[in-house]
Order: sequence, then structure tokens, then C-alpha cells
Amino acid sequence: MKNDVNRQVVLKSRPTGIPQAEHFELVERPLPAPGDGQVLVRNLYLSVDPAMRGWVNAVANYSEPVPLGGVMRAATLGRIVETRHPHWKAGDVVTGMFGWQDFAAVDVADVQVKISDDGTPLSAWLGVLGTNGLTAYFGLLDAGQPKPGETVVVSTAAGAVGSCVGQIAKIKGCRTVGIAGGAAKTALCRDAFGFDAAVDYKQDDLDTALRAACPKGIDVYFDNTAGKISDAVLKHLNVHARVVICGTASVASWDPIPLGPRVERHLLVKRARMQGILIFDYAERLDEGRADLARWVREGKMRYREDILDGIEQAPDAIAGLYRGENLGKRLIKIA
Amino acid sequence: MKNDVNRQVVLKSRPTGIPQAEHFELVERPLPAPGDGQVLVRNLYLSVDPAMRGWVNAVANYSEPVPLGGVMRAATLGRIVETRHPHWKAGDVVTGMFGWQDFAAVDVADVQVKISDDGTPLSAWLGVLGTNGLTAYFGLLDAGQPKPGETVVVSTAAGAVGSCVGQIAKIKGCRTVGIAGGAAKTALCRDAFGFDAAVDYKQDDLDTALRAACPKGIDVYFDNTAGKISDAVLKHLNVHARVVICGTASVASWDPIPLGPRVERHLLVKRARMQGILIFDYAERLDEGRADLARWVREGKMRYREDILDGIEQAPDAIAGLYRGENLGKRLIKIA
Repeated sequence: MKNDVNRQVVLKSRPTGIPQAEHFELVERPLPAPGDGQVLVRNLYLSVDPAMRGWVNAVANYSEPVPLGGVMRAATLGRIVETRHPHWKAGDVVTGMFGWQDFAAVDVADVQVKISDDGTPLSAWLGVLGTNGLTAYFGLLDAGQPKPGETVVVSTAAGAVGSCVGQIAKIKGCRTVGIAGGAAKTALCRDAFGFDAAVDYKQDDLDTALRAACPKGIDVYFDNTAGKISDAVLKHLNVHARVVICGTASVASWDPIPLGPRVERHLLVKRARMQGILIFDYAERLDEGRADLARWVREGKMRYREDILDGIEQAPDAIAGLYRGENLGKRLIKIA
Repeated sequence: MKNDVNRQVVLKSRPTGIPQAEHFELVERPLPAPGDGQVLVRNLYLSVDPAMRGWVNAVANYSEPVPLGGVMRAATLGRIVETRHPHWKAGDVVTGMFGWQDFAAVDVADVQVKISDDGTPLSAWLGVLGTNGLTAYFGLLDAGQPKPGETVVVSTAAGAVGSCVGQIAKIKGCRTVGIAGGAAKTALCRDAFGFDAAVDYKQDDLDTALRAACPKGIDVYFDNTAGKISDAVLKHLNVHARVVICGTASVASWDPIPLGPRVERHLLVKRARMQGILIFDYAERLDEGRADLARWVREGKMRYREDILDGIEQAPDAIAGLYRGENLGKRLIKIA
């Protein structure tokens, strides 16, 4: 990395479905200068998340689409290298939505977390202690409301969010069943993340496998996929079940909206609930989640896997890779 | 009605979709004798409800299917004509699930309400003060959580449940928008039930009409229909909207489950909730609902329409008639 150039990954064209390498472009720009009250952050790790698909699509979403030619929005972890704010000093390590780029000049209000040096690996703050872990935490506990002895099923269970959901549910005394694609991921679910059972949606007959894995039915379904996986899960819901809609990884495009079996009758007969969740809505409570998660990590109750790519050149194809299912663990890009 | 014969409407064959006249048979049986601790009820009014479709279908439901040859399950209102229980006397008027028949010998534990003579029309206890009104009350207030100033949309808005939902929402300070089929029903919504706007799903372009009727979007959708009406409504949900699934009147058969546009993305982007409700789950709180509803009826804030058929001979075709949309108001059968 040259220290007088800011490499950025910008959005070149707008995908309708999953963003591919060709929708991005790596450009070099001059180093930004922090304004008064700002700090200059040198990014060390860039996050790669399934939700980024939604951020570049033109269809209505929970945030404004990334503009064409704009730096790709992303969570990052970086070190302050220049400061024009009295309370922040060079060397502080911070996280924020600082984008796929080497450097960002940002308002200190946009810093999400200042990392204290407690021995936790830095990269964990973009995964298990970042948005992924917090999404799992509030989605499961607030929307899912798991009770001891209940059965919690998670899709993309080996993934960054799903693996946290399973472990939190286990900590709360639930039976945990993970759904993942392929033998490596189901093994990871069982061996690394402690799921009581794991179902391979590529190999198993889902209906049969779910019946076997969930002899008492399903009380909470944490849904990261939508699609055929969810269609199979819904048939096994218990009365008063809760479905937490966190992601739709199995649906390649929502324009037009794809067809699936109608859910109304399942929800009515089972008096069940489906609820979409976004971590933004828990902004006031994040510290509560971080404290629990960090304690569980220190206690060894919360394990995680990372899939760390090397160099910003890997960024353009990195989201598509997630949807190809090629990562085993939270995907990050180390750029310094 | 002969006083020594019990006419019953029994289930003759099992429909897969909406039960038609030919699925039932009117038979004459001997008068039942109440056992010890029982009372003999002479039914005066029989209820006809959309949910009865589910009670005769073989597919999984929230209650056991009515057996072939069994009396059709139904809410009724009747007078005790013989008692073998010390606390109940002949002449008491009661409601319960006493079925489509002239007489029923029942355990007193199965009496739902003993009607006090406060001048409220008896038939109201099978409608606005019965399951319909209570379903509207708890479904809207508990699952829908409407707040003053919010927009509440109701499907089958001129119906027994929908008309109550609209009026309760209005009492709670909401903007109310009813969806109904045909000019007579939309007029009823506006003129009799006080909806701020009514949309005719048979005549209007739903998407355009909903946009016009809900300029601030939709916060609560009380869904009695599912199907294309719901598909149109979901596009207009606000952030944190609540969808209450109460019925699926527009879906002729759930076997196999029909296809529709997937809902996950709407729910995720809007952090919205869909929840199925059944009045059974509020068994402990029914008195609370009855007290509010009865007060609103007395204060003239809760109006209702009835569609009263004459004679038990009308029963076999009465459910099918609901699904043909031929009633304007709560359908009952007066049999004595």
C-alpha cells in the first residue's frame, strides 16, 4: 500500500441480482484530508456481508443505494492515523461504515466502537463482536424469544450470523439445529459451533431430515435464506413459533418478487409470527449485546471462524463468492 | 320445530375446499337427555362463520376435524330447557359450541357466556359480542398494537370481524381503510362502520386505490383474506408494520398450498411482523374484551349488521354462501 494514494472499490454498474466482480472497479484517488472535528482512518480489515447485495440494488431497501461511482459501503476496522478532534488520538483502533477503501476521513460521530486492548483479536470486532454477532444476539433474543428446552433452527448455520445464533441459543438452553450446504459446513456446525444436529440441504431430504432433527417440532426459526429451505421449515413449526427473518441468501433476485408457497395458513393455524429484523433498530442497545458477546468469547462459549482474503483486489468478487457458498466463516479482507 | 325430535345438520362427506350444501345432511334424531351435572339447551340461533371451512377439512388445523356423520360444530345461542345442575336453571340463556342442531345436552363447563338481560339483542352475543367481536378486539389490539394516528387496513371490512376491527381502530384514534368487494359493501364500510376510506377490490386497481387511501402508508393490516388482496397491501407497509393473519377467505383450497409472491423481503426491509391469531389463545382474557365491546355497543360506537337466515334447513348451504360473498353482515340462522 502506498501511503499517498487511496485505493477505493467503487460501484461501476448496478446489478439486479447478486453483485459480481464486473459491477465494481478498483480506482486510485488522492489521500483525503480530515476536516475540523474529523479523523483520518487507515482501514485494516474490510467486511464482506450478504446484506451488501441489497445496498447496491436499486429496489427499495432499508438504506439508500450506494450511488454509481461511489465507494462501496462496508463495515471496516481501522487505525486513526491523523486526528483533528481533541478526544481522539492517532493509534486508536475503531470500527465504522468506512467503506471498501484504504483511507477514510470521517466524523467522529460515525465511529461505532473504539476497541480497547483486551486481547480480543481485532478482526473479531467485524464479526462475532460486530454486526454479525449483534444481529444474531438481538434477532434471536428479542424477536425469537427462545425459551429453555425449545428447538431453534438456523439456516446458513455455519455462517457468520448463523453460527452465533446457534451458540447463543445453546447458551440459553435450547436444542439447536443448523441447516447448511455440504459436508464441510454441517461438520463445522456440529464440531465447531456445537449444534445438536446439522442438516445438509444439498444432500438430505429436508422434510425428512428436519423431522428427525426436531422430534418436538420447531419453536424458533432464524431464517437467513428464505426460499425452499424456509418452505420446508415452516411445515414443522410448533404452535406459537417465532420466525426471525434476517436474510434471504437463497433468493437470487427480488425483482420481480419470486413465487413460493403462501405462508398465511401456517401462521394462522400455528398462531406463529414472522418478523423481519435489522440491527439498525437496536442502536440504543448495542453495548448490552457487545458486553454479553465479549464475555462469551472470553469464556470460550462463543467460537467463530474467519475467511480472510488478502488485499483489496479481492473485494470486487467477494460478495458473489459468499453467494457461491465458498467461505467457511466470516469473510473479511485484510488490507494492511 | 317438533319438541320431541332433534334436527341436526351432520357432515356427510369431507370437502377439500369450501364446504357446499351437498357435504351436509339434515337428519332427525331423538331428543338427548341431560346427564348428571348437564343441562339441555334448545338452540335459538346458529352461527355461520368462515372458519367452519377449516373445521371440516381433513388437513391439519387448530382443532380436530368434525367427524363424518357428526353434528357440524358451530357457536350457538340457546335457552336452557332442562337442568341437572344446581347452579343453572331453566330459562337461562347461554352461548357455547353446541352445534348445528335444535337441542344439545351439554356439560355446564362448556357454556361460554350466560347472557344477562341488559337489553342487548340476543343475536349480538354470536357476533359483535361473541367470537367475531372478540377476535377483532384481541387480534387488533394485542397482535396489531395500533397507535393513534396510524393507518389500519382491514380486508373483508364489511364482514363480521372486519367491521369490528375498523370500529375498534377508529375508537383507538387510527385512520381506517376497509377493503371489500362491491359497491354495497364499500358503502356499508363508509356509512355504517365509519371507515375513513373503502376500497373495492373487485372494481378498483388495488395498488392505486391503496396508495390514494393510505397516503402515509400502512401500519397495521388486519388480514381476513390472504391472496391477491394481501399481496397488494404488503407493498404499502410502513417500517415496523404489523400484519395480523386472522383468515384466508380468498384462498379456495390450501391443499396443495397455493403459490404467491414471497413475503420475506417485505418483512425484512420493513422490519415488519406477520402473526397468526386465534381467539382460543385469549380464553383467559375474554371478559375484558366483552366488557369493552358491550360498552361500545351501548354507547353507539360499535355498530353491526346481521344476515339472519330462517330455519335450520338453510344451514347446509350457508358456509358456501359466505364464500360467495352473498351476506351483508354477520350470518346467523334463527331456528326457534
